[in-house]
Amino acid sequence: GNGGAESLDYEVIENYAYREEQAQRGKLYVWYYVMLKWFFSLLIGIGTALSAVFINLAVENFSGWKYAATFSIIQHSYFAGFLVYIIFNLGLVFSSVFIVTQFAPAAAGSGIPEIKGYLNGVDTPGILLFRTLIGKIFGSIGSVGGGLALGKEGPLVHTGACIASLIGQGGSTKYHLNPRWLQVFESDRDRRDLVTCGCAAGVAAAFRAPVGGVLFALEEVTSWWRSHLMWRVFFTSAVVAVVVRSAMGWCKSGKCGHFGSGGFIIWDISGGQEDYSFQEMLPMAIIGVIGGLLGALFNQLTLYMARWRRNYLHKKGNRVKVLDACILSLVTSVISFGLPLLRKCSPCPDSEANPDIECPRPPGTYGNFVNFYCSNDKQYNDLATIFFNTQDDAIRNLFSAKTFHEYSAKSLITFLVMFYSLTVVTFGSAVPAGQFVPGIMIGSTYGRLVGMFVVKFYRKLNVEEGTYALLGAASFLGGSMRMTVSLCVIMVEITNNLQLLPLIMLVLLISKAVGDVFNEGLYDEQARLRAIPLLESRPKQYMRNMTARDACKNQQVVYFSRVAKVADIVSVLRNNKHNGFPVVGHGRNQEPLVMGLILRSHLLVLLQSKIDFQNNPFPCDLRSIANRHHLSDFVKPISSKGLSIEKIHLGHDELEMYLDLTPFLNPSPYVVPEDMSLAKVYNLFRHLGLRHIFVVPQPSRVVGLITRKDLLLEE
Amino acid sequence: GNGGAESLDYEVIENYAYREEQAQRGKLYVWYYVMLKWFFSLLIGIGTALSAVFINLAVENFSGWKYAATFSIIQHSYFAGFLVYIIFNLGLVFSSVFIVTQFAPAAAGSGIPEIKGYLNGVDTPGILLFRTLIGKIFGSIGSVGGGLALGKEGPLVHTGACIASLIGQGGSTKYHLNPRWLQVFESDRDRRDLVTCGCAAGVAAAFRAPVGGVLFALEEVTSWWRSHLMWRVFFTSAVVAVVVRSAMGWCKSGKCGHFGSGGFIIWDISGGQEDYSFQEMLPMAIIGVIGGLLGALFNQLTLYMARWRRNYLHKKGNRVKVLDACILSLVTSVISFGLPLLRKCSPCPDSEANPDIECPRPPGTYGNFVNFYCSNDKQYNDLATIFFNTQDDAIRNLFSAKTFHEYSAKSLITFLVMFYSLTVVTFGSAVPAGQFVPGIMIGSTYGRLVGMFVVKFYRKLNVEEGTYALLGAASFLGGSMRMTVSLCVIMVEITNNLQLLPLIMLVLLISKAVGDVFNEGLYDEQARLRAIPLLESRPKQYMRNMTARDACKNQQVVYFSRVAKVADIVSVLRNNKHNGFPVVGHGRNQEPLVMGLILRSHLLVLLQSKIDFQNNPFPCDLRSIANRHHLSDFVKPISSKGLSIEKIHLGHDELEMYLDLTPFLNPSPYVVPEDMSLAKVYNLFRHLGLRHIFVVPQPSRVVGLITRKDLLLEE
Ligand SMILES: Nc1ncnc2c1ncn2[C@@H]1O[C@H](COP(=O)(O)OP(=O)(O)OP(=O)(O)O)[C@@H](O)[C@H]1O
Ligand SMILES: Nc1ncnc2c1ncn2[C@@H]1O[C@H](COP(=O)(O)OP(=O)(O)OP(=O)(O)O)[C@@H](O)[C@H]1O
Ligand SMILES: [Mg+2]
Ligand SMILES: [Mg+2]
Repeated sequence: GNGGAESLDYEVIENYAYREEQAQRGKLYVWYYVMLKWFFSLLIGIGTALSAVFINLAVENFSGWKYAATFSIIQHSYFAGFLVYIIFNLGLVFSSVFIVTQFAPAAAGSGIPEIKGYLNGVDTPGILLFRTLIGKIFGSIGSVGGGLALGKEGPLVHTGACIASLIGQGGSTKYHLNPRWLQVFESDRDRRDLVTCGCAAGVAAAFRAPVGGVLFALEEVTSWWRSHLMWRVFFTSAVVAVVVRSAMGWCKSGKCGHFGSGGFIIWDISGGQEDYSFQEMLPMAIIGVIGGLLGALFNQLTLYMARWRRNYLHKKGNRVKVLDACILSLVTSVISFGLPLLRKCSPCPDSEANPDIECPRPPGTYGNFVNFYCSNDKQYNDLATIFFNTQDDAIRNLFSAKTFHEYSAKSLITFLVMFYSLTVVTFGSAVPAGQFVPGIMIGSTYGRLVGMFVVKFYRKLNVEEGTYALLGAASFLGGSMRMTVSLCVIMVEITNNLQLLPLIMLVLLISKAVGDVFNEGLYDEQARLRAIPLLESRPKQYMRNMTARDACKNQQVVYFSRVAKVADIVSVLRNNKHNGFPVVGHGRNQEPLVMGLILRSHLLVLLQSKIDFQNNPFPCDLRSIANRHHLSDFVKPISSKGLSIEKIHLGHDELEMYLDLTPFLNPSPYVVPEDMSLAKVYNLFRHLGLRHIFVVPQPSRVVGLITRKDLLLEE
Repeated sequence: GNGGAESLDYEVIENYAYREEQAQRGKLYVWYYVMLKWFFSLLIGIGTALSAVFINLAVENFSGWKYAATFSIIQHSYFAGFLVYIIFNLGLVFSSVFIVTQFAPAAAGSGIPEIKGYLNGVDTPGILLFRTLIGKIFGSIGSVGGGLALGKEGPLVHTGACIASLIGQGGSTKYHLNPRWLQVFESDRDRRDLVTCGCAAGVAAAFRAPVGGVLFALEEVTSWWRSHLMWRVFFTSAVVAVVVRSAMGWCKSGKCGHFGSGGFIIWDISGGQEDYSFQEMLPMAIIGVIGGLLGALFNQLTLYMARWRRNYLHKKGNRVKVLDACILSLVTSVISFGLPLLRKCSPCPDSEANPDIECPRPPGTYGNFVNFYCSNDKQYNDLATIFFNTQDDAIRNLFSAKTFHEYSAKSLITFLVMFYSLTVVTFGSAVPAGQFVPGIMIGSTYGRLVGMFVVKFYRKLNVEEGTYALLGAASFLGGSMRMTVSLCVIMVEITNNLQLLPLIMLVLLISKAVGDVFNEGLYDEQARLRAIPLLESRPKQYMRNMTARDACKNQQVVYFSRVAKVADIVSVLRNNKHNGFPVVGHGRNQEPLVMGLILRSHLLVLLQSKIDFQNNPFPCDLRSIANRHHLSDFVKPISSKGLSIEKIHLGHDELEMYLDLTPFLNPSPYVVPEDMSLAKVYNLFRHLGLRHIFVVPQPSRVVGLITRKDLLLEE
């Protein structure tokens, strides 16, 4: 079973109520609708940006306090410092897992597979609720601040999507402000557009990469796309960029503690390597291959991990989930504190030859060259520089240019192995968790290793290890997530180095190609695990040799007649789980005629409201129902199961009454002749975002032909 | 009439021949097909990049010689220099217009509206021929090198598309290498994908902006898009970037004359303004508004200009076209040489305060501060710096940072007015012409003007005029072309300044919104003028209240019966211009049955080959025709009219024979019930890239329902 995931309906249901509303709508309404759309995009941008700033601020300050406290205590006792560090981390992780398990179970994990599913047409219950939003925000502060091997970027995408959906429906599902004049975005289609904006806003806020956000939404998440939506998504991203930048400007003066001390560019390496030679292509290609292999392995291991947690560990209840996360926190703390202790310190580089390098760095400041458990004052611990540090600083240190020989190969390999394992082991625990930043850390470590090798090997070249670290990061993400254009742009935007674009492209191409040999992308694998039925953009090869008839060969179509008895409707709805039913009536000459499609959810609304029941089995007068229903009565609340037939209670009299379905059905669902190849049906289904297609007999007559010319007629 | 433009057929025609081929194809074939696709993408990238390098090299060297010669002669006589300058320009422009008029009429103009049309589903005859490619390459060398107010970027997009289409069909239409094993890309669908790649490659090569290229193809040109195509387009762009960069590296050592002296980034301003304050938002917004206004005006004026040329001037024959271009060249030369002469020179900035500035620049080098007709040695002519210069250098000078007070407002205004007028007047002449670079020049001029004003007004701020020039350029392009995301990325990639991204976004949003009030984007207006029937991505509002039946109300459907008499076919094809015909037969119980759709082009092939004619009017045996036809026999050569019924001669006997259409028809065209709203039909047509839709009566029966679950079945 797919855990209750249900399809969305992107098709416009052109029923009587809809057409009534369309007819009533003037030019003014269209204007209002468009303005509201843009206003909502603005709100989504502002909301997501502020959430991101809040999360960043909280995480950086918690981490800042944590490291400041630990560093000041270890001046006296390393053991006391260790305890403080462990307790701090444990407290944060516990708060995170507590919030998630008690309050917002849908907030666990990254949320991207679910959002991807939503935009592909499948609604996973609970993912877009208000409580999920809250759980995501506070949970990721705890899990990231608590030093686990996970990132806040995936959760931010989910946060953006939640904000968008909540703004679209005017508040949370339970307590929502629902004035009539806001009820214009209640079709699944409008919601999806807003969620797309939210998704882009999340990426834009997470990486301060507005173009990357647009492309991410375009490439990785949405299943279909219209160019005028791009324009609105772009606007939302631009708003995010402006708001985040303003907030950072405001924070720069020190009002926000540690936050805002970096620039708008997260890991600026624009001062790095300017050029590259052809000889360097080989090691870069090797980085791509490594990325593909490690990324595919990562996908496979995380899949096992997540499956084990899902099917075994987490079935045992919330206590086990909390325990799981706390153990992870302990292990992570012990490793990140303990391993650097075992490492010998290195002497600082010659301060005369490298006047810009401050080594060791003064306690409580940012930078490389941490003095951690070193006997000598002029020494630093290279492993602590990357391991015993916030993720952002660690990445900054790994990307840093003009710092040759800062890290020993042994430290980097130690870190790579340990952090890779930690990331895999942490995957699937019940806290909000993204894989972007851990991926960057893993990738930049082996990238830098290759870079060190290249520096040694090609002595004459102006090679920067930082550049290789960046390429490594790109390759690992490409090998795991299998994105291309968006990842490339995100990498450029977070490092501010356009020169490297062709190299990043090259590395990504290789790592994706290598990864694709082994398995699917991370999000696809996870979506499959969660039984989210994603439709790929292409039909499978074998579908070309099948017809539409083959796809529904053994089907006994369950249908209603035009005026149906209430008791029959109830029994049909009880006896099967189908979500759409053909309605069959009679034409003028009493020949049978398919009148349209009625949705289960609409039937349930009708059964509950009861006002349309009638005593006679004859067609009703359409005009009589004119103002009985408002279009929004039929809207299913987002991310919830909606009504269920078991909850509707009908008296004996009511069951004996009749219901004319004509005004409520979709009179023109898409139809395909039974001989059409399944590949063509697939394209129709996928590209138009449908939920139901009727397979009908070959037509007997052609009423007319529609060509381009007919669609270009002026009004 | 639309000048012979004809729709493309993106739908797969699942006829007998197709199904035979599909059945024969093994796994190996699929592999081969995929590999070939990627190999072709590689070739497209390399081909486009080399063409771009060739064009750039030629233009820069011609311009270099021209300016070097002129500058060395004006040391002795300004009049002699003037003559040389004029003759040089005239020669280049004449060569360009001569090539275009005599040899490749379809190479005139930018070509983007036609390519946009092609990817929207309309084929304009001649646009993708080999001769058009040649005309485009050599023509744009002449027109750009000859100093006209136009750019080479639009033509490069067209060049990329031509290369892609030629590679796809294995050579030029007339003399093509057509080995069987290359005949896999002969459906319109495959060609379109290749042309999309070519288009992106063109932009990537023109601006050295690979991501911008992908986005341009995505946003501006293609009408529909699949995410796996994005990946291939991206690959092509990456190839372009690598090839262009390598070529430039090779040229850097001076092997290519003037080319290669800049970096990979065309107008690098990464050293410019780092930050901006909130107060600067206002002047920036004003730039956006100006851009929207001037851009919309530009679209309108160019529309008039192009219409006048098209409907009046160029109707008079090729001589007038040549004369037109030559007069334009003369006028441009006189203005660009003469106006700076009238301008008083300014004293050079204090060389002690600005040690990096070389003023006046030594003759024959790049840079600002040209000494042109100045009495004093320590003076420079600011108007000559931008007007009497290559476009690339002029833009570099306008974007230049840290050069306050270099230009007087009077010079900039003079240049703005004159260049704007020249660009408008030049539009539509019979030479290859792009509007990107002229747009950047116009925009950066008023941008810099606003910047100068801001510098004066907000004295304390760290304002750079160069930044404002960049924003001005973005705003004008946004106001004229109405692109958003792609333009934004292109601007960032050509200037290498990611910091300004949010500002560029802001300016673009404003200028597009302002422009949209007045008219459509440049390419849309031009497509309309050329009668290219573009389908927008959204149905018009009024279509919601119409049904499919309304769209073909007065139609008398012309159809064939299953076995048709040859004489009938010929007379039907002679008597109307329809391109598709329903074929009607009988079912098992003799009830009428729509069997499918036959295309005019397929009928013509059948009539010409004659081998399928039969003597009796009974259905033929399908197996007997098995190997008579190869799928590629039915392929229409690209960009040509194909066969015509007038050219097919049939004897009297042949006319009396019969033809069974069953094996050749598309057995399952998309159908819509006659009650479906036209808006839904539009979406179907547009999103699937169709050419014909059958409107059929409401079905009488539902054979089955297809839902997501049915499409996810494993093999
Ligand atoms: N009215 C019907 N009569 C007969 N079979 C149906 C009918 N509706 C659906 N089915 C079949 O039953 C199966 C499940 O139907 P269902 O409506 O649950 O679709 P689904 O793919 O699960 O999508 P959804 O998320 O909408 O439930 C599908 O294989 C479908 O073909
Ligand atoms: N077989 C037919 N019988 C009747 N009317 C037709 C038929 N085919 C097309 N038409 C109508 O004739 C008009 C022109 O048809 P035509 O086939 O030329 O299409 P078009 O829109 O011009 O596209 P194309 O580029 O394919 O020619 C359209 O309005 C169309 O509805
Ligand atoms: Mg179901
Ligand atoms: Mg036509």
